[in-house]
Amino acid sequence: MQDTIVTAMLDAAHTKAKKLGVKVCISILDAAAWPAAFLRMEGTILGAIDVANKKARTAALFHMDSADFAKIGHPDGGAYTLENTNGGMASFGGGLVLKAADGTVVGAIGVSGASTEEDIAIARVAANILLA
Amino acid sequence: MQDTIVTAMLDAAHTKAKKLGVKVCISILDAAAWPAAFLRMEGTILGAIDVANKKARTAALFHMDSADFAKIGHPDGGAYTLENTNGGMASFGGGLVLKAADGTVVGAIGVSGASTEEDIAIARVAANILLA
Amino acid sequence: MQDTIVTAMLDAAHTKAKKLGVKVCISILDAAAWPAAFLRMEGTILGAIDVANKKARTAALFHMDSADFAKIGHPDGGAYTLENTNGGMASFGGGLVLKAADGTVVGAIGVSGASTEEDIAIARVAANILLA
Amino acid sequence: MQDTIVTAMLDAAHTKAKKLGVKVCISILDAAAWPAAFLRMEGTILGAIDVANKKARTAALFHMDSADFAKIGHPDGGAYTLENTNGGMASFGGGLVLKAADGTVVGAIGVSGASTEEDIAIARVAANILLA
Repeated sequence: MQDTIVTAMLDAAHTKAKKLGVKVCISILDAAAWPAAFLRMEGTILGAIDVANKKARTAALFHMDSADFAKIGHPDGGAYTLENTNGGMASFGGGLVLKAADGTVVGAIGVSGASTEEDIAIARVAANILLA
Repeated sequence: MQDTIVTAMLDAAHTKAKKLGVKVCISILDAAAWPAAFLRMEGTILGAIDVANKKARTAALFHMDSADFAKIGHPDGGAYTLENTNGGMASFGGGLVLKAADGTVVGAIGVSGASTEEDIAIARVAANILLA
Repeated sequence: MQDTIVTAMLDAAHTKAKKLGVKVCISILDAAAWPAAFLRMEGTILGAIDVANKKARTAALFHMDSADFAKIGHPDGGAYTLENTNGGMASFGGGLVLKAADGTVVGAIGVSGASTEEDIAIARVAANILLA
Repeated sequence: MQDTIVTAMLDAAHTKAKKLGVKVCISILDAAAWPAAFLRMEGTILGAIDVANKKARTAALFHMDSADFAKIGHPDGGAYTLENTNGGMASFGGGLVLKAADGTVVGAIGVSGASTEEDIAIARVAANILLA
């Protein structure tokens, strides 16, 4: 992903979080799950750093939003313990696969620090930039 | 296991995956759970690397196919938390114990990337080479 | 550090790297060595991610630029093996302590991917924002 | 890298090792340092598994053969402690950057188990396949 796209996604997520009045961490990974960009808003709980990273990592490694991953990586899902692979996955919402307009997976974004619904909404604003 | 056997198993699993039209990782361990061979088909999701290794590791460490391990290493099983030992086991199918024709355990194989049923079928083709 | 300061430092370092025509990772930590912001420019070698983080971590944990740390954490220095504490420190330049105008330590920045001299120059531009 | 290229490199390195009469591990990574293929010849010392992987990882993360990395990541080099980043690098020969005919980095290979010169020669045979 080009620098201008990555920083535009980071800014868009940051702006959305400010509008919602919440404090979050935003983690953007490339398609191979390597870090591309990260921002922790001042005052965000420290536990959210690793959570945001793990949400993004889950989406990048399994090409699946972390809310969908939660359906399989769970004691009642079809692949219990899948959530314990790869250093630990995030089996709840806030991690989104980043896709180009043609559907190609180009990376993933994870947001953590607010409610799951707010985390998802913030990540979605960033992901939508790739479709514009 | 002799090199020729290991590479024949890797090739057989690879060929089976291509026939099924799926992308998988194939991990073969020796009886002491050390890596013997590995192949990731181009385009396989990255999360499958660790999953294939953990499936094989589960089978090697407990002399039990990972689908059987799932019956005990589970919140509802008889040995809940066994799945969290040894760096994390895989409590679902796709890991098979490799046995010689006389029943001796010689290693394990794990396959991940397709459906659990396909993963098992691919691993089985490789395991059967030892019985031929 | 306020969000506006953190993002201004990230932008300033990024702009300086583009002017120099180099690809780098920029890592900004708070005074407690927790991540505040990160950017990897497209095309930067992947090894630079951890190096940028470790340079910043070295500066944050010892209140010392990593180039100064190199004089003590070295087989010929006064505190050999200090570089192996804290998960591994970076005993070469590119990590700077971030200080407010009154001298208070507010965090650290690490830059990696270009020559050590360029890495330091990029980090310095960001650090100077706090003095403006 | 296409499956056929990866398996051809693995086979070529294996054949070269047999010709030299040595036992080695061969580790092939993609450009993002994720495993693509691995083979441990029967009888290879177990310590060589991680060494082969780390040699390949060094080349992939720094776009530098591990023998060249040794010149900087060393107490007398320009970036002492660089060898301790990224989970530990291999500061001696046997890891080669894999480049396509046009010079693009497509991955890395690491070989360990024989003498450093033999490890390099085995890796070189595989790397040359990409130039054919």
